[in-house]
Amino acid sequence: MTGSLTIAGLGPGDTALITPEVSTALAEATDVLGYAAYVARVGPREGLRLHPSDNRMELQRAGEALKLAAEGRNVVVVSSGDPGVFAMAAAVFEALENSPELRDLPIRVLPGVTAMLAAAARAGAPLGHDFCAINLSDNLKPWTVIEKRLRLAAEADFAIAIYNPRSTSRPDGFARALDILEDAGCADRTTIFARAVTTPKERIEMMPLRDARPEMADMTTLVIVGNSATRRIGRWVYAPRRAS
Amino acid sequence: MTGSLTIAGLGPGDTALITPEVSTALAEATDVLGYAAYVARVGPREGLRLHPSDNRMELQRAGEALKLAAEGRNVVVVSSGDPGVFAMAAAVFEALENSPELRDLPIRVLPGVTAMLAAAARAGAPLGHDFCAINLSDNLKPWTVIEKRLRLAAEADFAIAIYNPRSTSRPDGFARALDILEDAGCADRTTIFARAVTTPKERIEMMPLRDARPEMADMTTLVIVGNSATRRIGRWVYAPRRAS
Repeated sequence: MTGSLTIAGLGPGDTALITPEVSTALAEATDVLGYAAYVARVGPREGLRLHPSDNRMELQRAGEALKLAAEGRNVVVVSSGDPGVFAMAAAVFEALENSPELRDLPIRVLPGVTAMLAAAARAGAPLGHDFCAINLSDNLKPWTVIEKRLRLAAEADFAIAIYNPRSTSRPDGFARALDILEDAGCADRTTIFARAVTTPKERIEMMPLRDARPEMADMTTLVIVGNSATRRIGRWVYAPRRAS
Repeated sequence: MTGSLTIAGLGPGDTALITPEVSTALAEATDVLGYAAYVARVGPREGLRLHPSDNRMELQRAGEALKLAAEGRNVVVVSSGDPGVFAMAAAVFEALENSPELRDLPIRVLPGVTAMLAAAARAGAPLGHDFCAINLSDNLKPWTVIEKRLRLAAEADFAIAIYNPRSTSRPDGFARALDILEDAGCADRTTIFARAVTTPKERIEMMPLRDARPEMADMTTLVIVGNSATRRIGRWVYAPRRAS
């Protein structure tokens, strides 16, 4: 019996944002692996084994998923949002590179609505012009790289989506990021804090970057810094198509 | 009677990638507006008026949608992919800015799976690390801005998703973009051409940037240029989580 491995994105939170493709994959799975908070979003049913694990266990989880698939199970690894954006897909391919004997395993990546798209939708259209996405977690890259990218993104006048701005283990990075962007000439730029977007705890706040405070972000927040042409009209914010 | 305006993303092509939220909005619509090729993806039914229009009519279409909503219709404006990424949401807010009397109209933006996420999923995980998205259409911005952003994106070592690389009205821009990226030191970078992704005409090709040719892209192609750390394993390509 041949198993399979599917890496699926659950979207930002609301079940109405899970694609039918992902729902079908979950209905056919024998095993679901992922960070506990995401596995909890998958309903239990007979014949389905749930394998929740801790955050930061990505590579180990990916190896376990490959092993189960090689044993003939139909495995789904779940991520929040899109699995290819700062999530499990890269970890699975890293594990696959370490296990050459498994390279013929049937693997699929199923895309999802990543947090910045849901956050942008709630705010209006701040990503309607060229933009970038930067993960502020420095667990896996040096802060010098993050700082360089923030400065170049400001110079390029990209709208900037900031993933993982702040966690209890990294309380200071986001404050530095705000300082760097202000120093790079972004003080006037409209900044959006989208917390727990599409969930009952959703909260959207907007202000010029100079008024943004680090404590406005937590682990569930996606931050978007608009480009220099971004406009506010009433409760909406958008990047004009004819920007800069 | 109060109308409403919903700006919805249909995803990259496969109906299994349309979110239930968008399907519900389409089921409740009285009017659907959009570029003809996207409106054609919405099934006709009794009580639903379809308003297909030409490409490049974005602002006029947005104004018409606002007008219909103000008349009490339940209007859905459809985009391919995500409506907030190089699509109709920005045009609607631009039209709204021009019509202050309509600012209290109920408006919603419903996110979707944008092309780069579907393309990345087919290829593996090339957007697993920091990345940017650049629209190569120069209808709405000067080429100097595009060139500057490409150079800064290369310097920042972002993976680069290129939307609208080439059309019959703009045959040369993509060739210039490839030259700029090669000149900026990206010749070795893995480059992915994802054509008509998730449709029956899908075709995925990968090669080092130096071997990429402008004619490999057409209007339905999304191009991803990997970052400098991007790796290929068998048929997969991914950006390591510990990049550069």
